[in-house]
Amino acid sequence: MTTFANVGSLGTKPGKRDAVVEILTQLNPDLIEAGCLLYEVGVRDDEPDTVFVVELWESEEAHKESLQLQSVKDSINDAIPLLSGQFDGEHFTVLGSPLRNMPR
Amino acid sequence: MTTFANVGSLGTKPGKRDAVVEILTQLNPDLIEAGCLLYEVGVRDDEPDTVFVVELWESEEAHKESLQLQSVKDSINDAIPLLSGQFDGEHFTVLGSPLRNMPR
Repeated sequence: MTTFANVGSLGTKPGKRDAVVEILTQLNPDLIEAGCLLYEVGVRDDEPDTVFVVELWESEEAHKESLQLQSVKDSINDAIPLLSGQFDGEHFTVLGSPLRNMPR
Repeated sequence: MTTFANVGSLGTKPGKRDAVVEILTQLNPDLIEAGCLLYEVGVRDDEPDTVFVVELWESEEAHKESLQLQSVKDSINDAIPLLSGQFDGEHFTVLGSPLRNMPR
């Protein structure tokens, strides 16, 4: 089973980083139901205006569809006024892991 | 408990991407013992010479120390001849997740 990895960073307005972390880490069971396997939110000491995210989803479609969830729309709307507009990111198809046997 | 996220991409020599994926996805129980919580390896259809990795570790130190493991050194040595030398990456401290309650 391949999964979909979505990795990115969000620029925040000065002083708003922690508020964005707060929004993105609000417990949201909808995400699990939508097929989110992992969603980690973090920061770097040397980047005071950036929030980093790593997400794993059952599929690219699951990720896309999750953006239609009202709870997700709400958190995006909450975050947007705090963001600088600078985004960076990458997504890819996961093929395997050295932590588990993958079917060949 | 904060964890350490390490995200990156490795450029491969033309035609060597899948061989690098094969090396990086070889089952390696040492990693779990070393504090590796997640290690996903993947690709993008539109980037034939790049392998993407997402790693979560118990700590930055755990990640650093893992590089001294013989099994990790061996897989790095196996992969190096297949790599183009182009690396990109980011690491950050994970603060929380919308998939779980984080102690405040």
